[in-house]
Amino acid sequence: MEPVEKCGIFGIFGHLEASNLTYLGLYSLQHRGQESAGIVSSDGSILYSHRGMGLVSEVFTRNIIDRIPGDRAIGHVRYSTAGASHIKNAQPFVVEYARGSLAVAHNGNLTNASRIRDELEAYGSIFQSTMDTEVIIHLIAQSRERSLADRVVAALQQVQGAYSLLFLNEEELIAVRDPNGFRPLALGKLDDAYVVASETCAFDLIGATYLREVEPGEVLIINERGLESMRPFEKTTNSLCVFEFIYFARPDSVVFDRSVYSVRLELGRQLAREHPVEADVVVPIPDSGFPASIGYAMESGIPLELGLIRNHYVGRTFIEPEKSIRHFGVKIKLNPVKDVIKGKRVILVDDSIVRATTGRKIVKMIRNAGADEVHARISSPPITDPCFYGIDTPLRKELIAASHKVDEICTYLTTDSLGYLSEEGLRECVGEDHQTFCYACFTGDYPVPIPAYPEDTQMALFEKI
Amino acid sequence: MEPVEKCGIFGIFGHLEASNLTYLGLYSLQHRGQESAGIVSSDGSILYSHRGMGLVSEVFTRNIIDRIPGDRAIGHVRYSTAGASHIKNAQPFVVEYARGSLAVAHNGNLTNASRIRDELEAYGSIFQSTMDTEVIIHLIAQSRERSLADRVVAALQQVQGAYSLLFLNEEELIAVRDPNGFRPLALGKLDDAYVVASETCAFDLIGATYLREVEPGEVLIINERGLESMRPFEKTTNSLCVFEFIYFARPDSVVFDRSVYSVRLELGRQLAREHPVEADVVVPIPDSGFPASIGYAMESGIPLELGLIRNHYVGRTFIEPEKSIRHFGVKIKLNPVKDVIKGKRVILVDDSIVRATTGRKIVKMIRNAGADEVHARISSPPITDPCFYGIDTPLRKELIAASHKVDEICTYLTTDSLGYLSEEGLRECVGEDHQTFCYACFTGDYPVPIPAYPEDTQMALFEKI
Amino acid sequence: MEPVEKCGIFGIFGHLEASNLTYLGLYSLQHRGQESAGIVSSDGSILYSHRGMGLVSEVFTRNIIDRIPGDRAIGHVRYSTAGASHIKNAQPFVVEYARGSLAVAHNGNLTNASRIRDELEAYGSIFQSTMDTEVIIHLIAQSRERSLADRVVAALQQVQGAYSLLFLNEEELIAVRDPNGFRPLALGKLDDAYVVASETCAFDLIGATYLREVEPGEVLIINERGLESMRPFEKTTNSLCVFEFIYFARPDSVVFDRSVYSVRLELGRQLAREHPVEADVVVPIPDSGFPASIGYAMESGIPLELGLIRNHYVGRTFIEPEKSIRHFGVKIKLNPVKDVIKGKRVILVDDSIVRATTGRKIVKMIRNAGADEVHARISSPPITDPCFYGIDTPLRKELIAASHKVDEICTYLTTDSLGYLSEEGLRECVGEDHQTFCYACFTGDYPVPIPAYPEDTQMALFEKI
Amino acid sequence: MEPVEKCGIFGIFGHLEASNLTYLGLYSLQHRGQESAGIVSSDGSILYSHRGMGLVSEVFTRNIIDRIPGDRAIGHVRYSTAGASHIKNAQPFVVEYARGSLAVAHNGNLTNASRIRDELEAYGSIFQSTMDTEVIIHLIAQSRERSLADRVVAALQQVQGAYSLLFLNEEELIAVRDPNGFRPLALGKLDDAYVVASETCAFDLIGATYLREVEPGEVLIINERGLESMRPFEKTTNSLCVFEFIYFARPDSVVFDRSVYSVRLELGRQLAREHPVEADVVVPIPDSGFPASIGYAMESGIPLELGLIRNHYVGRTFIEPEKSIRHFGVKIKLNPVKDVIKGKRVILVDDSIVRATTGRKIVKMIRNAGADEVHARISSPPITDPCFYGIDTPLRKELIAASHKVDEICTYLTTDSLGYLSEEGLRECVGEDHQTFCYACFTGDYPVPIPAYPEDTQMALFEKI
Repeated sequence: MEPVEKCGIFGIFGHLEASNLTYLGLYSLQHRGQESAGIVSSDGSILYSHRGMGLVSEVFTRNIIDRIPGDRAIGHVRYSTAGASHIKNAQPFVVEYARGSLAVAHNGNLTNASRIRDELEAYGSIFQSTMDTEVIIHLIAQSRERSLADRVVAALQQVQGAYSLLFLNEEELIAVRDPNGFRPLALGKLDDAYVVASETCAFDLIGATYLREVEPGEVLIINERGLESMRPFEKTTNSLCVFEFIYFARPDSVVFDRSVYSVRLELGRQLAREHPVEADVVVPIPDSGFPASIGYAMESGIPLELGLIRNHYVGRTFIEPEKSIRHFGVKIKLNPVKDVIKGKRVILVDDSIVRATTGRKIVKMIRNAGADEVHARISSPPITDPCFYGIDTPLRKELIAASHKVDEICTYLTTDSLGYLSEEGLRECVGEDHQTFCYACFTGDYPVPIPAYPEDTQMALFEKI
Repeated sequence: MEPVEKCGIFGIFGHLEASNLTYLGLYSLQHRGQESAGIVSSDGSILYSHRGMGLVSEVFTRNIIDRIPGDRAIGHVRYSTAGASHIKNAQPFVVEYARGSLAVAHNGNLTNASRIRDELEAYGSIFQSTMDTEVIIHLIAQSRERSLADRVVAALQQVQGAYSLLFLNEEELIAVRDPNGFRPLALGKLDDAYVVASETCAFDLIGATYLREVEPGEVLIINERGLESMRPFEKTTNSLCVFEFIYFARPDSVVFDRSVYSVRLELGRQLAREHPVEADVVVPIPDSGFPASIGYAMESGIPLELGLIRNHYVGRTFIEPEKSIRHFGVKIKLNPVKDVIKGKRVILVDDSIVRATTGRKIVKMIRNAGADEVHARISSPPITDPCFYGIDTPLRKELIAASHKVDEICTYLTTDSLGYLSEEGLRECVGEDHQTFCYACFTGDYPVPIPAYPEDTQMALFEKI
Repeated sequence: MEPVEKCGIFGIFGHLEASNLTYLGLYSLQHRGQESAGIVSSDGSILYSHRGMGLVSEVFTRNIIDRIPGDRAIGHVRYSTAGASHIKNAQPFVVEYARGSLAVAHNGNLTNASRIRDELEAYGSIFQSTMDTEVIIHLIAQSRERSLADRVVAALQQVQGAYSLLFLNEEELIAVRDPNGFRPLALGKLDDAYVVASETCAFDLIGATYLREVEPGEVLIINERGLESMRPFEKTTNSLCVFEFIYFARPDSVVFDRSVYSVRLELGRQLAREHPVEADVVVPIPDSGFPASIGYAMESGIPLELGLIRNHYVGRTFIEPEKSIRHFGVKIKLNPVKDVIKGKRVILVDDSIVRATTGRKIVKMIRNAGADEVHARISSPPITDPCFYGIDTPLRKELIAASHKVDEICTYLTTDSLGYLSEEGLRECVGEDHQTFCYACFTGDYPVPIPAYPEDTQMALFEKI
Repeated sequence: MEPVEKCGIFGIFGHLEASNLTYLGLYSLQHRGQESAGIVSSDGSILYSHRGMGLVSEVFTRNIIDRIPGDRAIGHVRYSTAGASHIKNAQPFVVEYARGSLAVAHNGNLTNASRIRDELEAYGSIFQSTMDTEVIIHLIAQSRERSLADRVVAALQQVQGAYSLLFLNEEELIAVRDPNGFRPLALGKLDDAYVVASETCAFDLIGATYLREVEPGEVLIINERGLESMRPFEKTTNSLCVFEFIYFARPDSVVFDRSVYSVRLELGRQLAREHPVEADVVVPIPDSGFPASIGYAMESGIPLELGLIRNHYVGRTFIEPEKSIRHFGVKIKLNPVKDVIKGKRVILVDDSIVRATTGRKIVKMIRNAGADEVHARISSPPITDPCFYGIDTPLRKELIAASHKVDEICTYLTTDSLGYLSEEGLRECVGEDHQTFCYACFTGDYPVPIPAYPEDTQMALFEKI
């Protein structure tokens, strides 16, 4: 349904309206993080910075953009998680150190950050945030290398995990993608300026041309002499995050060199082939289930209808009545169209299931609207394992598929049938023959070692729901 | 005067969480007005009020709701027009007068308000706002009738135009729909409480049951003795606003006793019958063109695809770069999916065309994404005349169809073909045999006399665009 | 101690920076009201307005001042009382009526406003505020006279009580002082512009020259033709508010044509003559007791010392500890200097006593600091009766001198002696031979009839203190 | 006039309302810094913190205080200087390091902080602020000592300059005063809790008893076992800041074990003895010149009068008219009482002169009010040298007495005579026989080495004034 990833990043070098274009780039990447937003720019001699809690459109005003001058900038949007929601964890993170100023924007997750931090603190280092990103900064500050690029590489050779990174100092912008290439990072051009972004939809808005991906393990140094590429890390197999295709990226983006919308449509077609069912209508769960539902409808020949309408004005909080309304949390976002549902055999299509609690409420809502049958079709395999590479999936005890079989989940959802896309089907649709992906959330097969984490208990389905 | 256009109203009588439920009702009606929101409640002896500029979720907090106690309340959301955007024009409007306190919430537009106001002011009346609604209040205050209902009727017998109205004083809630029934108003029930709302989607969220429409010319008096209905006005022909079906109402609402989604789907089917074309893909303009595009695809057999993706995080203002990006205003909201568009013959479906300036930009965007052909299909007839009954259509000089023929509009849009739904087709889809509607915006045939308005000049198509 | 008056008003006609100068005038009059502030200006064709809750420096910004253009303006500061503290009661009050726009700023209190309002409402008038000022506006709107001045006079001939008033419409500024002249109003000139203000300290700040008082019963009409004076009201005896001299007005102002500081110094001298006592030190209660304490010290020959220091950073609210600190409310404002107090016979000087609760706490504080004796000296007679002419003194049950004799008050204050200035002494100091004043708060002798008010009970001294 | 010092600090250990009492302590110390305020508390296991820009009463609310629980807390108010005015420089400064959390509040100025910071950064340390205080934290984090007290001492043995410091970790509160004792620090008791504060006025408000000064070079460790005192630093001569007596401290405080008010009164008496003049009236410049003016009046026998009235409602910014009012900046704060000044020989008394620009304007104002003669008397010697120990006096080029003789200053001020207190007179009044003070701002004789600072040019008196 709506698992969420951590961040979106954007950078530009060589354009007089650098901070304004970064603002627009972040605007396009807003779906990758809504907790905080920030931009750091430079005019070649000073770094200028503004960060704030909230959406890009709330954090920045014309006045603020005008106070972030210069022809180069990096920006960041961050996802909100309860615990660490604090302005000090907003990015880009900026520090003053012996070599001047340095800003960093990070998408991903380091797997050995805690251990490195402990070591640094034991020798007197003082950390300002709880972000794993900060250990990279300390390692850079302590590096004896001369150039920023060399210090960055020296620091990154000590860390493990997932990182698409942008660094900005007074002179240059450095973009790095980890050797496994977990998270996407695209390179583009706007007139004479280079731009980098998590997704290509950021290029579309500002009218930039997509050139290519920043490749796994590549370090790009962009300065007044142009663009230079290094590959300082030991080569390893790619493990691109397949969940970008399933849910995270915007459908109008090109990610890992493929159209996200087209992959999703194909997942829906494959789903129809794997799990056909006699029914009257295909209903997408908006908006996440849209592309796959179109594929499912095409392949099955069953008509697609908008059986669920989304309220586009949902704010971040609601004032619930004390005598709570049944299924309130779902109702505030979705409402069924009775004419479409009543007396029909309905195929509900969505991209994934995490906890299944929302899904259960939607199925109830569809049944209350008079459906004769409800068949759930999910355009990804069961999520059985947490992600440690930058996606905010919950621990195992909150993943229904970690502890329950498909027929149990079907019972819980109260659906007449439930069909998940197979792992093989997924591999085929994303083009596993051309590329290698990370499927850890479906398989528990982690391509980079992960830290020990607390033993999970099984998800308790029917308590407190 | 400044007619209050495009509004949503909600009322409830007899529920302990009246203001909280009104807040949720307004939440569901947010699409009918985003400028301001307000609630007035009563505990039987005092009226409590809060109004503010902005969305319902911004105007109200838990603390504020707690300060609007009582078991009865009315609420209002108002659409934003530049000139009159001021808190003093937010509703519900509340006054103190000799008989106590009185609050009113109004959806619609009075056509003789200016004349009445001039007369009242000549005798020393002092107006607080520029809303036409306020003349009703003054007429009520000056009425010599005893009961509130009689004073309301006496006042309304002096006004003309479109009005769905809710009144609240310390003892009762009165709901009125004008004799022509221009604007919708639905009656529902939640436990022992009566609820009234512009659309039934407000009932769905709070779990209320839809009973029936408040009928044209009906006055409903709701108080502790129950519900009483009066029909004090002279009978006239119904003129229900057909634009509620075409664009305004939410697709999941029942309006004028029909499912809005189903009518829109039917409009799309009829459009396909009237204007078929050989093409590869049907692309809706999100979200307004969605239901009709599904109908068009069904009827034509041409597959529907999401060729345009909408950014759901668009704020109210953007900081545009000075060296402006081409078609920026459209790009911030919509982005094409190249894989869907490239090399294809595209049928673009939308519900209506007002100025055509946005449409022209969207067509350019589709062409830039590589479409071979672009065919525009519009699920309503050309809009040729302004609305004086509560819809915010602009004056004639801003309506492209007021001064240009279909082939000229097609040239302006740069489309390969353009097909509007016929008036006959529209009449058939909305069920003209059962009901009578107002088609004034397509025909200039106004069912209630309108005030003189400035002579319009023709819309200038290619200047300053 | 700190009785408080209702309002300060300021007006200017014929200066390009009218609203900015009005802002400064209100700044100088801030001591006359801290609840709300407002300015209405005109450029000759439109009225511009801004009002807000809070201090002048909080309500206005450069941007706001820039949006109140024109060469004429009136302004108002209002004192905060709990019940009616609401933006709708902020002034200047502005209305649209048949003759255009009209703004009014009022200092004073009408004694027959409730009766007139009841009559107006019975005929359908709708009031926007709970201010007595609004009845004047309704009377003006209903007047059949042609000129604004004539309508103002017709309206004022129906009201009774205290009023210094400023009216502004598109063409002229009208200043009126009631026939008794209760509240002050001064006329000045700045270059070619006329200025009017409650006190002359407002002229000093903007560099204007004080010309004369607006006289009791005078109506001044200021427009592009210059200044015109009318005396349309029946002549009556002056009843200037003597409390302006005792406490309200700023010591650097000239009020009723005399220096406030000099009158207060004289009150202190007279107090020393009437109530001498052997002591070591004269200590003023800052800042209200300062001028009188200097007079007392001069006349008595006993040295003045700063035995109580005032904290100038006291905000509007404090967060008190739950386990409340003794005499906290006084301590946050005042702190004794032990070196000055210890082992000394102290004469404490203040301007007046209302409830005596604060005074009692100050005396305790002085005793705790080691004073051998404490003698209270008050530079006005006992306040025995409430004011109905624009000063916010409480009802009788809260006035300690309404129900207690001087020796009882002395016991309550725990002072060794207590001396009030005599009424004769007061009359002599303020120059009763030249002018006649209102002494109603000391005598109960009201020069204009007052409305009936609830029977007061006696102030309960030792309960709940 | 109004030179300003940097900070006020307050700490408490062992009281259930620790943060509320700290808030009140800061309230009392508000005159020592108005830029920012902060409190850090602990319940024995976690540190809680809140800091903000603005006055104590603006930064803290009841809700915020409730979120800073525990029985121990430290607080800080900071003075505003343009360059470094940023929340990151607000104190108490809190860090996480290997040993847990640590908060520090600092009053004073380190003279070798820049050199130490450069060294630390060269080895990779990352600083968060531009405050000299932060070097102490880094030295503590890198110390190999075991106890907090030992790490604090180890760190402080590397720094030089002025510091009164409060440290708080989860277990203890440590208070330190530098070996020279530049800045004051007092120890008190409230029930079982120990309190420390820059001035005793903070004790008075919360009802605490003053015990003694924290002595120069003393380290106080306060924890659940009680109070422990250490003297780990090499002994040196005291250099107490004499300017605390002249201007900084509140007159109701006891500082360096003497009553500030009494010292100031004595300075005024001595000034009268050194610089007698025939005159009619002694006028204090409020409020800084008050105590000395009383002393001057007593000794000279010339009567004191309030010839200048201060506006107590002056906000932080004013909206000046474009056609600027003469001497506006002074007028907004002070207004003369003409009756007191006119035709008189006036002695103006103030505590000190920094730039003399404000003084010149006040003298003009007094002359415009009609004074026959104006004689300035200053209750301190000429300020010739900047302070490097925590007082924000400007550089030499802005100190008029650094480059001009007394008669030149008199000419600039346009006074008939000017008398400064002699250094000998000052030494006598403050009790030089009992204590040794720092007089560096009057003599340039710095008791602790200061860093090199840019060569100043002479103050340009008549340009741009």
